[in-house]
Amino acid sequence: MSADDLAAAGPFDEADRAAVYRAIATRRDIRSEFLPGPVDPAALARILGAAHQAPSVGFMQPWNFLLLHSLETRARVHAAFARANAEAADLFDGESQALYRQLKLEGILKAPLNICVTCDRERGGTVLGRTHNREMDLYSTVCAVQNLWLAARAKGIGVGWVSIYHEPDLREILKIPPAVAIVAYLCVGHVERQHAGPELAAKGWRQRLPLEELVFEERWGQRP
Amino acid sequence: MSADDLAAAGPFDEADRAAVYRAIATRRDIRSEFLPGPVDPAALARILGAAHQAPSVGFMQPWNFLLLHSLETRARVHAAFARANAEAADLFDGESQALYRQLKLEGILKAPLNICVTCDRERGGTVLGRTHNREMDLYSTVCAVQNLWLAARAKGIGVGWVSIYHEPDLREILKIPPAVAIVAYLCVGHVERQHAGPELAAKGWRQRLPLEELVFEERWGQRP
Repeated sequence: MSADDLAAAGPFDEADRAAVYRAIATRRDIRSEFLPGPVDPAALARILGAAHQAPSVGFMQPWNFLLLHSLETRARVHAAFARANAEAADLFDGESQALYRQLKLEGILKAPLNICVTCDRERGGTVLGRTHNREMDLYSTVCAVQNLWLAARAKGIGVGWVSIYHEPDLREILKIPPAVAIVAYLCVGHVERQHAGPELAAKGWRQRLPLEELVFEERWGQRP
Repeated sequence: MSADDLAAAGPFDEADRAAVYRAIATRRDIRSEFLPGPVDPAALARILGAAHQAPSVGFMQPWNFLLLHSLETRARVHAAFARANAEAADLFDGESQALYRQLKLEGILKAPLNICVTCDRERGGTVLGRTHNREMDLYSTVCAVQNLWLAARAKGIGVGWVSIYHEPDLREILKIPPAVAIVAYLCVGHVERQHAGPELAAKGWRQRLPLEELVFEERWGQRP
């Protein structure tokens, strides 16, 4: 290989590093703060482009993006959420259940746009790098979601990830074929304000763990 | 809730947006370009901090980070890779197999640091948001990996994700308990240069798909 194939890859300057860290640090899961106007088409193209730049196993690019503007479609998804969420609340006890029932866990109807991000398990036949870890294509698709989320933060667009639904319900509503996995259901819209920190921490559901307790060296359980 | 809990969430200015997009666009899977020196401890703390700021289902924060400096440990992982990779090569036919055998698919020994990122499936009992989609904690952990990768790019640190191994091999080498899933095995080190585009495209393995073919509206298969 010639050196021409290589590009500079050194550190960003301080201001640019700070911008990247700020996107990471101030990305929130948005449920209530969506503004009503439609998502700017150029901004939408930008965040989808960022998703498409995600790493993918064997350069498989297994993702698709289903854009859901229609209120009718989103109302059907919301009904599927509501049914699953009622079941979910019953799984928590006492005070937790009372708190759970107060939490706003989705912005399906409030956000002007929903995006269902899927993973085509059969794209490209035998996939380099997936031969021994079959779930790598799902993980690639999650990387696309996180890229989208961070690019959206930089654009002033909020994203919320909804995970409380029965998968067959969404599959039927969106006509997703059997070989395609549903990875993420996202609520998307412009925002002006958001929670200063993780909303579940602010509401007393669970607190940030100390990072140092999560780092091991050389083998599981061994502290640095 | 008082307005005090909310912070500004508008768009970044143009320079800061560009920095975020640049991290996303120039993040590469590094295999060969690692510099030999150790990873700067402050930079390592920064990228682990970015990982820990990832979204997680029910604020579960299911991740751990196993830092592998020891050459002995990494040599055992490399042997596990080599065995699996020989099997993997046999799964491709003819020209593909010849090309596969020429590809450099990991930097386990060349990188000064490897990080195994895991997901504790049992952390925190019943998890909000995971009640109906059991794999959400794995996906949260992947978001942490992508955060780490982008923060590393901004720091001039390269990351390569190795997925070709038999999971029980890694589990035994790193003493990972049964309730903990191995999500990512990363090779990490400073870099000065990297491939200008996706390495598998440059080597002729597979090319970038047109994004517009991957976007649907309202239901699967319907073009905007």
